[in-house]
Amino acid sequence: MRGLIIGRFQPFHLGHLEAVKWILTQVDELVVAIGSANVALTFRNPFTVGERIEMITRVLKTEGLLERVHICVVPDTGDMHTVWPAHLRHWCPHFDVVYTNDLLTRLCLEYANIPYRGIPFFKREEYSGTLIRMLMARGSNRWRKLVHSEVSAFIDEIGGVERVKKLAQIESVI
Amino acid sequence: MRGLIIGRFQPFHLGHLEAVKWILTQVDELVVAIGSANVALTFRNPFTVGERIEMITRVLKTEGLLERVHICVVPDTGDMHTVWPAHLRHWCPHFDVVYTNDLLTRLCLEYANIPYRGIPFFKREEYSGTLIRMLMARGSNRWRKLVHSEVSAFIDEIGGVERVKKLAQIESVI
Amino acid sequence: MRGLIIGRFQPFHLGHLEAVKWILTQVDELVVAIGSANVALTFRNPFTVGERIEMITRVLKTEGLLERVHICVVPDTGDMHTVWPAHLRHWCPHFDVVYTNDLLTRLCLEYANIPYRGIPFFKREEYSGTLIRMLMARGSNRWRKLVHSEVSAFIDEIGGVERVKKLAQIESVI
Amino acid sequence: MRGLIIGRFQPFHLGHLEAVKWILTQVDELVVAIGSANVALTFRNPFTVGERIEMITRVLKTEGLLERVHICVVPDTGDMHTVWPAHLRHWCPHFDVVYTNDLLTRLCLEYANIPYRGIPFFKREEYSGTLIRMLMARGSNRWRKLVHSEVSAFIDEIGGVERVKKLAQIESVI
Amino acid sequence: MRGLIIGRFQPFHLGHLEAVKWILTQVDELVVAIGSANVALTFRNPFTVGERIEMITRVLKTEGLLERVHICVVPDTGDMHTVWPAHLRHWCPHFDVVYTNDLLTRLCLEYANIPYRGIPFFKREEYSGTLIRMLMARGSNRWRKLVHSEVSAFIDEIGGVERVKKLAQIESVI
Amino acid sequence: MRGLIIGRFQPFHLGHLEAVKWILTQVDELVVAIGSANVALTFRNPFTVGERIEMITRVLKTEGLLERVHICVVPDTGDMHTVWPAHLRHWCPHFDVVYTNDLLTRLCLEYANIPYRGIPFFKREEYSGTLIRMLMARGSNRWRKLVHSEVSAFIDEIGGVERVKKLAQIESVI
Repeated sequence: MRGLIIGRFQPFHLGHLEAVKWILTQVDELVVAIGSANVALTFRNPFTVGERIEMITRVLKTEGLLERVHICVVPDTGDMHTVWPAHLRHWCPHFDVVYTNDLLTRLCLEYANIPYRGIPFFKREEYSGTLIRMLMARGSNRWRKLVHSEVSAFIDEIGGVERVKKLAQIESVI
Repeated sequence: MRGLIIGRFQPFHLGHLEAVKWILTQVDELVVAIGSANVALTFRNPFTVGERIEMITRVLKTEGLLERVHICVVPDTGDMHTVWPAHLRHWCPHFDVVYTNDLLTRLCLEYANIPYRGIPFFKREEYSGTLIRMLMARGSNRWRKLVHSEVSAFIDEIGGVERVKKLAQIESVI
Repeated sequence: MRGLIIGRFQPFHLGHLEAVKWILTQVDELVVAIGSANVALTFRNPFTVGERIEMITRVLKTEGLLERVHICVVPDTGDMHTVWPAHLRHWCPHFDVVYTNDLLTRLCLEYANIPYRGIPFFKREEYSGTLIRMLMARGSNRWRKLVHSEVSAFIDEIGGVERVKKLAQIESVI
Repeated sequence: MRGLIIGRFQPFHLGHLEAVKWILTQVDELVVAIGSANVALTFRNPFTVGERIEMITRVLKTEGLLERVHICVVPDTGDMHTVWPAHLRHWCPHFDVVYTNDLLTRLCLEYANIPYRGIPFFKREEYSGTLIRMLMARGSNRWRKLVHSEVSAFIDEIGGVERVKKLAQIESVI
Repeated sequence: MRGLIIGRFQPFHLGHLEAVKWILTQVDELVVAIGSANVALTFRNPFTVGERIEMITRVLKTEGLLERVHICVVPDTGDMHTVWPAHLRHWCPHFDVVYTNDLLTRLCLEYANIPYRGIPFFKREEYSGTLIRMLMARGSNRWRKLVHSEVSAFIDEIGGVERVKKLAQIESVI
Repeated sequence: MRGLIIGRFQPFHLGHLEAVKWILTQVDELVVAIGSANVALTFRNPFTVGERIEMITRVLKTEGLLERVHICVVPDTGDMHTVWPAHLRHWCPHFDVVYTNDLLTRLCLEYANIPYRGIPFFKREEYSGTLIRMLMARGSNRWRKLVHSEVSAFIDEIGGVERVKKLAQIESVI
């Protein structure tokens, strides 16, 4: 039995990690599918897909989870939501069920008759990509507590905080 | 130091595996980039990118190589070869040098000032994706000797030989 | 003499039907062109183009209008408004004049030297796709009075109200 | 029970008409889906999708078949064959089964778990779009016997023979 | 030494002209790259790329600057900002350095290791494309003082003020 | 009166120059539109659009023709030939008539009701982009006599002959 989790992972945070661990108690193997793979250098999607692959790999390797996980990517299909599930199937290794709480993802999967299940939330208020990026943009270091140490180290390596600050300024987010 | 190997891997064969092993004697880590990621169900590209991720992962795991390898994907950019290197950078984890013998890939990388190196060929006549697909199409089992046992097992699981036979017929290849 | 009416028809409502009937008093035949054909599963465009073809066909058949009408579809061209009229010509059967009150459509047609005419509005406040979708989202049945009985029956068949409710929630419309 | 027939209909010929009639003995309603909808002005696809909608409509109306038929269009998805069935579903009214003899179409539908059935061929050697276009290109009038009189009249109206001759010359087909 | 200036030039105004003149005191030759080349007939981008080429050429010719300037165009790459610099290189004649104050442009260029420099602002409050379009939309003639007389003459020739007024109304800008 | 000449200019040769000079005896101004602007690094289209803008500009400047000429670019529209004329209008400054001998271009322009005229050929056998690229690929210097000295100088500057040789090898042209 193989599950799939889909997310933008901007960045991959502890809520994502908890979800991965929990799903691995439910299934034998897990596909981690990185969505909006074609987007980068925006406040909402600051990191390239290559960077996201790398941060997720580092965390899962450190946590000893890589053995049971496949990492893959899925580009956006714009407003053509009806064909997104077919893209999911094309870009990802085989999966039996999708784990997602996202309502639009669920609607698309229903349309395509692909089964899905919910995921328990882990400190949803805190473990949020948007919050993490806002904290980075505001110069607070509190985001570091919301991601794995491998992620914060990687983001430092690539100058990620500086990039997010600039994007927040560019898009007048703060 | 991190290298990158780019290929379509239709399918991943023993020549690819030898190349991966050899590059890993030259660098610390290797990015395996699956090209033409957007194409599937053609004789030249029968397998989806998800299927290719899976066959490569299985082989590298069995061979104990996954620890030092990242797998990623790169879509085609059509005839706009000048922007392909920027896509390579977007879709892949960071790399220092590309290992490739393909002349068009080298030309594109030169245009973009990305360094590359050659790879020694391993039984080039035999270890060829085109030959493997032709053998499948003709009903010969000899292709099985040209791929890792994990690959032939996976191709059997997904009915890959039957698919290649049909595609060869559809495109009048044989 | 053949006219063309262009709309998103999300859904096809009584205002559209009145417009179709009125234009058919002006011209011999009418092309009904479904715009934004590539979009679906958004609050603004909940129905696929296939679903919209079906609801329009049922209404026109019931009303005995199908004999003089052609139904066709036109995808969006994004912000490249200058080429949209050429797409209109490619995707639609021949037409002599476009009937439209939409100012952007008129501007594009002017740019391309395609003639257009206005349509009298029929209870514009009531007969509005946006209003109909809002009523669905809020759980009011009043939308049923704003569409032909064939449309409400079809929307019930495909679970359309439930879909619109979910999309309104997903996009935080209500 | 509703069937679907997919074709490029360049042009719609008597073989297509026989197929439509035969399928209508098997099912209650039929969706006629015009493929490669985005292509035109090539020797292989000389007619726009609007022109093809018109020629099919005229024939089906004359033959009294329009009552039980829906006409729709499907754009190409290039080499991304895995997502074509999702496009088929998006662009077409609901269908239960596809009637097709085309091997690639069948392979794509199998991949997406969409059921299909074969169609008896009607004078396959004669009733062929390629043959008809070749006859036009060579200045032979024999193509007129291979299409419905409504189709030949329509092609004459739009100067279709001259167009096909030019395209054959441009692409060095003859 | 050759510089490049990138802008949307909707329309080309006196601030742009001052910038061009100033950069030409710094470098031997200048590439004027027209961005968002694929967009037109929106309030933000009312003029086609052909129209923008024409207004810039007329001004530079009148000012005797054309000798040292190349004009070219660059389409948008949507949210895929990482590949935009490769497009810049593909679509433009060779350049050594980009002159830009735009923060997103700078971020993209940094990502691609392309050098850039700042430009002194010339009456930034006044010389603004947005202000000029707003003045047009409101029926004020004050925009004429903010552009070269060749630009106002050209805009009059093509009915540009009327177009901007309609677009402002269509997009509810005023 | 303003004419337009459309070509790929791979490279711009003496036949093109003769055509430009001849057309300028017929009209007041000329738009030189560089087609297939999105393609580069293929044997058929070795040079980027930026490089082509540069070689044409240098020649026209040397010949004193730049005063009456506008240079612009037009991307391909694939097999959607019906919308290409609308792209031509979007990407180019205003023109009254197209000068072209290309049959496909003429067919597309006829479809869109855009007037065109023929151009006298100037040593058609010799002045041919294909011949020039073949001569480069074969190591013959004879191509230099078929282009303006500004073009051969520019091609030398960018290592163009070496590029064409590699592309000929990559695509097995020779």
